[in-house]
Amino acid sequence: MKVSSVSGAQEIPRVIVFDTFGTLVDWRSSLIRYLAEFGRKRGVNADWIKLIDAWRAQYMPSLNSIRNRERDWATLDELHRGSLEELVTAQEINGLSRDDLEYIVNGWHRLTPWSDTVPGLSRLRQKFIVGSLSNANLSLLVDLAKFGGLPWDVVLGSDIFEHYKPDREIYTGVAKFFNVADSAVMLVAAHNNDLAAAKSFGLMTAFIPRPTEYGPEQTTDLQPEDNYNYLASSIEDLAQQLGA
Amino acid sequence: MKVSSVSGAQEIPRVIVFDTFGTLVDWRSSLIRYLAEFGRKRGVNADWIKLIDAWRAQYMPSLNSIRNRERDWATLDELHRGSLEELVTAQEINGLSRDDLEYIVNGWHRLTPWSDTVPGLSRLRQKFIVGSLSNANLSLLVDLAKFGGLPWDVVLGSDIFEHYKPDREIYTGVAKFFNVADSAVMLVAAHNNDLAAAKSFGLMTAFIPRPTEYGPEQTTDLQPEDNYNYLASSIEDLAQQLGA
Repeated sequence: MKVSSVSGAQEIPRVIVFDTFGTLVDWRSSLIRYLAEFGRKRGVNADWIKLIDAWRAQYMPSLNSIRNRERDWATLDELHRGSLEELVTAQEINGLSRDDLEYIVNGWHRLTPWSDTVPGLSRLRQKFIVGSLSNANLSLLVDLAKFGGLPWDVVLGSDIFEHYKPDREIYTGVAKFFNVADSAVMLVAAHNNDLAAAKSFGLMTAFIPRPTEYGPEQTTDLQPEDNYNYLASSIEDLAQQLGA
Repeated sequence: MKVSSVSGAQEIPRVIVFDTFGTLVDWRSSLIRYLAEFGRKRGVNADWIKLIDAWRAQYMPSLNSIRNRERDWATLDELHRGSLEELVTAQEINGLSRDDLEYIVNGWHRLTPWSDTVPGLSRLRQKFIVGSLSNANLSLLVDLAKFGGLPWDVVLGSDIFEHYKPDREIYTGVAKFFNVADSAVMLVAAHNNDLAAAKSFGLMTAFIPRPTEYGPEQTTDLQPEDNYNYLASSIEDLAQQLGA
């Protein structure tokens, strides 16, 4: 897919924060490998792809239960565990111990970056402050960074703000920490809904398509659905456009 | 100065956090160089060492005004600016513009690490999660890390907790983020009062003397004043003792 920058979008941010699942790391392929290996080693048979896709489908509803104050704050690790427990029952995946469930939840801490992620971040880091802005909790993000070598200057997770995207507080919280205007912060994401929220709260935005994030049949987020400050085919391309 | 580990202290932490000013970076020498150069370039004469020492002496009183709720939350950058403004008047340092004051406050963002800091952190990072636990604000710490190449996995500053050390919340907040016991977190510091607080709240502790932090006449914190889990002559020595 060919994308190019929007003409006239020459503003330069001070701080660049990245959505993480899907934008920086290939969670679906990584979890498929992780669970297939787990199943082989533990002798557990299951349709792991079905489990993973159903698990991710629980993501937004579980965040929304907190965003709508139907329940108290819980970290993404805790939400992942809760939805996993429901799904292994619903999908009749039997024989999993508590340690097995813990191990599976921990798969979200061990996701492989897309090939352009580390070189792109490394370039951007020479010129900008780069970090995460993720619904994951801080400890998950730190594990991801160590696992994949993500060269962030700062790790910002939802538990620092006790808010999940698309709540305003998590987007505007970045500028507060860095004592800059919201418009000096840019969110980079592969998801139009995340960018729409960021844009509505005054942040700069950059779209990078990840057309296989949800697998070969993906139909959403193949194209930008609004005018963003930058469109880039990869994080390396974004670095190039930003002169980094 | 020769220090060695306390016998029997063989517990191993999961997360190691570092006090930063004095423990990781040589703030006093760095500021002396920074201000001497500033004075030469701007043609401003002053006793910069006197200013710096008086400025640092305002550190604890200014934090305490917030810890005692005499005033609302303010970041360390803001506190630094307030005390600097008072001191330049008191010390009759004339001719400084607003931009000059901003430039001087920003000196705290550009402090040189002690020679063992970067190699020691780099070794520890291979085995542990390493980060800051500082009264500085997040943006100051990110600038310090970029300036000095501090290889932290996570940057934790007082503004994340909206508490200054030695408040309990900042020490115990680390374990909450990492979903571990307080005893799985170790604070490394060159200051007995910081370590005493950390120890009282259940953290592991390591003392590293920095006998010239306050200049050649330093009389405090030359020795450990309690039993800590580790005593080390440098961060590299600490890495050695921890098998990293």
